[in-house]
Amino acid sequence: MQEFDLIHRYFDWRPSHPAVTLGVGDDAAIVAPRAGESLVIASDMLVAGRHFPSSTAPAAVAHKALAVNLSDLAAMGAAPLGFTLSLGLPETDAAWLESFSTGLRAAASRWGCDLIGGDTVRAPQLTLSITVFGTLTGARSIRRDGAQAGDRLAVTGTIGDAALGLMLALENGRLPPGITEADREMLLSRLDRPEPRLSVGQALVGRASGGLDVSDGLLQDLGHLLEASGLAAEIDLDAIPLSPAARRWLEVLPDDLDRVLAGGDDYELLLALPPELPLDPAWGLTVIGRLDEAGPVGAIRERAGRPLPGRRGYNHFNEDGA
Amino acid sequence: MQEFDLIHRYFDWRPSHPAVTLGVGDDAAIVAPRAGESLVIASDMLVAGRHFPSSTAPAAVAHKALAVNLSDLAAMGAAPLGFTLSLGLPETDAAWLESFSTGLRAAASRWGCDLIGGDTVRAPQLTLSITVFGTLTGARSIRRDGAQAGDRLAVTGTIGDAALGLMLALENGRLPPGITEADREMLLSRLDRPEPRLSVGQALVGRASGGLDVSDGLLQDLGHLLEASGLAAEIDLDAIPLSPAARRWLEVLPDDLDRVLAGGDDYELLLALPPELPLDPAWGLTVIGRLDEAGPVGAIRERAGRPLPGRRGYNHFNEDGA
Repeated sequence: MQEFDLIHRYFDWRPSHPAVTLGVGDDAAIVAPRAGESLVIASDMLVAGRHFPSSTAPAAVAHKALAVNLSDLAAMGAAPLGFTLSLGLPETDAAWLESFSTGLRAAASRWGCDLIGGDTVRAPQLTLSITVFGTLTGARSIRRDGAQAGDRLAVTGTIGDAALGLMLALENGRLPPGITEADREMLLSRLDRPEPRLSVGQALVGRASGGLDVSDGLLQDLGHLLEASGLAAEIDLDAIPLSPAARRWLEVLPDDLDRVLAGGDDYELLLALPPELPLDPAWGLTVIGRLDEAGPVGAIRERAGRPLPGRRGYNHFNEDGA
Repeated sequence: MQEFDLIHRYFDWRPSHPAVTLGVGDDAAIVAPRAGESLVIASDMLVAGRHFPSSTAPAAVAHKALAVNLSDLAAMGAAPLGFTLSLGLPETDAAWLESFSTGLRAAASRWGCDLIGGDTVRAPQLTLSITVFGTLTGARSIRRDGAQAGDRLAVTGTIGDAALGLMLALENGRLPPGITEADREMLLSRLDRPEPRLSVGQALVGRASGGLDVSDGLLQDLGHLLEASGLAAEIDLDAIPLSPAARRWLEVLPDDLDRVLAGGDDYELLLALPPELPLDPAWGLTVIGRLDEAGPVGAIRERAGRPLPGRRGYNHFNEDGA
């Protein structure tokens, strides 16, 4: 198949946003933000065998690649506009491309994010590089350097499901005692199909004083927030929101709490909230601690003095992910 | 090395454009175009061993990766603003990263294009994915679907040098008769260090009726212009601008004209110019033919009826580049 046939067949959709004045097909795309709007831009690269198993269903690959990028927009408080996709393919597999394209289009349509351009090349491993664009009105955003001493620390959703799902994906079918088939499906779905917290992010622009998304592990990403804002934190391990499946898992295998706190791939938002801000239940937030200056910058203490994992999260440049 | 140390050490430069209100270091970058400005967005992915030899000097890799993206901006008539870089690395080689970072910074500074974000991951082959942003004032741009019958067809610079340079790079030192060491250096430099035609592109917005950059071969890219604009073309082989080295080469090996016309990697602009437009010598343009409706859409005829190569250019999805 010729490259241009491939793009035309699988990736040439009409954009839906009026701001996209030229989409796929020319040398470049053109985006015309409205007066007073800023563009928010984030990039993530995913490599098969490293960021997802090579056997992952094409639609799940598409979902996750777009979702992890949109999670960065959510963490800034931006609304999705569009994305470019550069796709490195080891071979031209029409069935794979068809499923991938269908899954990507469903994800793009669901989150209102137009595919506006990209590139397709040969690569030794399936490689996806997405750059996503969002809009912010005015100058306000959720930055990691804005958190203040006295802020409450809160997270969306539940923490650790994807890390436990990854253990299941790597263990080839063996379930820990007490974990049901339904639990397994939920944990794997949290790994493969993260949900970017776009509406919470947009609701909290101008309200949260700082925040980021939890992609490399709760403790590591909290460390980034603290370093950027020059603060320390106290967290309460009992307050970390867990799914019923994760709760059952930790009852049997309490040492896996380390995986929950440092495993990554949560794609929840971690937010610093001023003490006076009323919390809308619709945001689905759980307060897990408080920011202060009671320790060295970056220090994380547990409320009851319980030990925290020495390894805070995922590092792409150690082969074991440590 | 930790991913965040790596980013901080090699890629955390302060942006220079006032439109870049938040650069490297948060979940995403923020760009605030001025009222009335559009953003032009293009992506290219380069894989070592496929788009450049794995032994290519790191600074040359950096130069070329940014240049080929900027060539897309040039082809729209846009001015560079910034770029994101997603970098897949097989290993953390500090000496390589140091040279790459220095070369990238020099290229970015030379073309006034800020590094505003990106990602670094492990990959089986060195992989670069760049998304570049430029600005256009008002609604005008150079599109490939705007060319008109009667337009002159013109190119910047010279054609085919990079294709001949690639033959030299693959032949390991053997020079065709009549080709000097200085010729070799020039041809290799045209392959490794393309010059995006940014100022010509910007000068021709609102003047050229259509255009694109020549990346996949002159004939193939001309074909894209013709298909998008619904036209045919007549070209004059004697008018194709050649460097003195390419001219000497073709005197000895005339069959290599096919490589010149279809080899790609030129990163010159191919433009459709209304007949009444006076040509400023500063643009460095050579008229090579004319657009018409005298044949089927996409047809390219030679003025004196000479045969053109059957293979029009480079296709990323055939292993032999055909």
